[in-house]
Amino acid sequence: MDAILPIEEKNGHVILLDQTRLPGETVFFEVHSDVEMTDAIKRLAVRGAPAIGIAGAYGLWLGAKASPAAEPEALMRDIDSSYALIASSRPTAVNLFYALDRAKNAACAAMKDGCCAMRIAMLACAGSIAREEEQSCIAIGENALTLLHDGMTLLTHCNAGGLATLRYGTALSPMLLGAQRGIKFNVYADETRPLLQGARLTAFELMRAGVPVTLITDSTAGMLMRQGKIDAVITGSDRIAANGDFANKIGTYSVAVLARHHGIPFYAAAPFSTIDMNTQTGDDIVIEERGAGEITEGFGRRTAPEGVRVYNPAFDVTPAEFASAIITERGILRAPYKESIARAFGGEN
Amino acid sequence: MDAILPIEEKNGHVILLDQTRLPGETVFFEVHSDVEMTDAIKRLAVRGAPAIGIAGAYGLWLGAKASPAAEPEALMRDIDSSYALIASSRPTAVNLFYALDRAKNAACAAMKDGCCAMRIAMLACAGSIAREEEQSCIAIGENALTLLHDGMTLLTHCNAGGLATLRYGTALSPMLLGAQRGIKFNVYADETRPLLQGARLTAFELMRAGVPVTLITDSTAGMLMRQGKIDAVITGSDRIAANGDFANKIGTYSVAVLARHHGIPFYAAAPFSTIDMNTQTGDDIVIEERGAGEITEGFGRRTAPEGVRVYNPAFDVTPAEFASAIITERGILRAPYKESIARAFGGEN
Repeated sequence: MDAILPIEEKNGHVILLDQTRLPGETVFFEVHSDVEMTDAIKRLAVRGAPAIGIAGAYGLWLGAKASPAAEPEALMRDIDSSYALIASSRPTAVNLFYALDRAKNAACAAMKDGCCAMRIAMLACAGSIAREEEQSCIAIGENALTLLHDGMTLLTHCNAGGLATLRYGTALSPMLLGAQRGIKFNVYADETRPLLQGARLTAFELMRAGVPVTLITDSTAGMLMRQGKIDAVITGSDRIAANGDFANKIGTYSVAVLARHHGIPFYAAAPFSTIDMNTQTGDDIVIEERGAGEITEGFGRRTAPEGVRVYNPAFDVTPAEFASAIITERGILRAPYKESIARAFGGEN
Repeated sequence: MDAILPIEEKNGHVILLDQTRLPGETVFFEVHSDVEMTDAIKRLAVRGAPAIGIAGAYGLWLGAKASPAAEPEALMRDIDSSYALIASSRPTAVNLFYALDRAKNAACAAMKDGCCAMRIAMLACAGSIAREEEQSCIAIGENALTLLHDGMTLLTHCNAGGLATLRYGTALSPMLLGAQRGIKFNVYADETRPLLQGARLTAFELMRAGVPVTLITDSTAGMLMRQGKIDAVITGSDRIAANGDFANKIGTYSVAVLARHHGIPFYAAAPFSTIDMNTQTGDDIVIEERGAGEITEGFGRRTAPEGVRVYNPAFDVTPAEFASAIITERGILRAPYKESIARAFGGEN
């Protein structure tokens, strides 16, 4: 498998794969500032919760790097401005805040050593987050493989692959690891309107890895389940509340209800950092609403009447009870989630 | 409401509204032969089960009109060829077969009076079917209004409006009639991938009629239901089996499962002619599979990798148990449907 790195630091700037142009074109572009990184995250050139976190940490570093501040306190104020800017890009992705906090804390800890040390600490921190995410994804894949078996047909929604993280992804990790080990899965990929991450990215990644993938419209999943063609559903997650409710790409909730109705296991796979203990339940998760144009003219030409009212939430919340398991790099969480999550956090402290 | 007629006979040929170009352009084109009509049905220039039936009957007439046959028997053979050709265009729409049979029978009955009489009888038959469909739609709307009330928020999938029939449609009939009478509904329209009939046609028709409509992606419906924002779902149907199982646009089954899960009534609205007593259950309904291009490059640019495998069924089957009622022009059918449908047919014989 020839992995494409969606984010890479090189020569003092960051190189991003422009995921909006996949699968037609594989185009990389340079990001030189926090403003450019915010824009890249907003327009989904980089997307997927873990990748957004990594991009955010690098963005904070770019902001600090460009700051003219010569005193640690002044630099910290500029870092705070960059933080606010980048944090505004995708409010639902908890990984973004986690990564921004971590990079900011790294800068804080280095304040006593001056501005240069602060900037270096932030760069090192972003690199660590990237490496840890990659290792997490491998562990998530290993854990997921204990729940799945050779020959299964899986359904996934949106893209939680190597483009969303680094190399292996979360929901796609068992498929990609499996492909390397001769464990064969058939995969149905929901195209995932409005931005077609399933069609553009998931199909692309799985085909590259030699995993048999069939593309369907989002509304075909129910029919396939009724026909007994789906053995398990596995998706990523952008934020998991303390009680296990989780936000993921719009449509995940529908898939979860359909899976429940048909007695099909539904797994949410995500790095542990996706769990936000400050979010009590799914009701507390802010759902990002995106522009009407993604629906009315998403494919290069207008496909709805001028002036039509549009409701375009980027995510929905799936109550914890619909997840057969939440798969993290630290292990597999099961219901009751409030308890299993608290235990997992307790074990950490 | 300024109605657009999707099908009209004029000066010896048929004028069709090219629905594939809505809502951007309102373009009409002339159809002069059975071959052209088959092509128009296949490429969805005319779509919606009742409209396909009307178009099919006119197409059979065009075939007979163009036939060089001078003897009734020879003309009948040409009519049979046209029948086979047109019937191949959309195998799931039972209205098509109903209309073709009726037009053919009209020709049969006129054989004793010669070829000219046969052709005239077919033209008259197609016109009758069109007028009857329009009357049926008004009656469907009246019946549906007895189940709904002012201020309700309705969800619909695909397009079962005046473009799919003539003027009022089936699922949209209560909304359009309501708008004329001051009964207000809010409507969420599923965009309905892959061909976006909801975005292109339903939104267009409802906006023209002054009905407040909000466009959503298909996978947003579940979230809205969970939030308590949908009071009832109403869709059309392309074929209803003798036990009440019904085929409709892909995704209807998913919406029905979601409605059931959330305790929301689900209504299928269709002309009585949509019921096919020769189809015992939904398992006997042949599901048309359409080309991959509708999903991979539906709107002018490619949005999935070259060579990706695609599964693109045009319809799915919803078991009768998911319908709170089936609304026809002859009345409202309720479970158990096998009995209520048989009774409705019994009353006819």
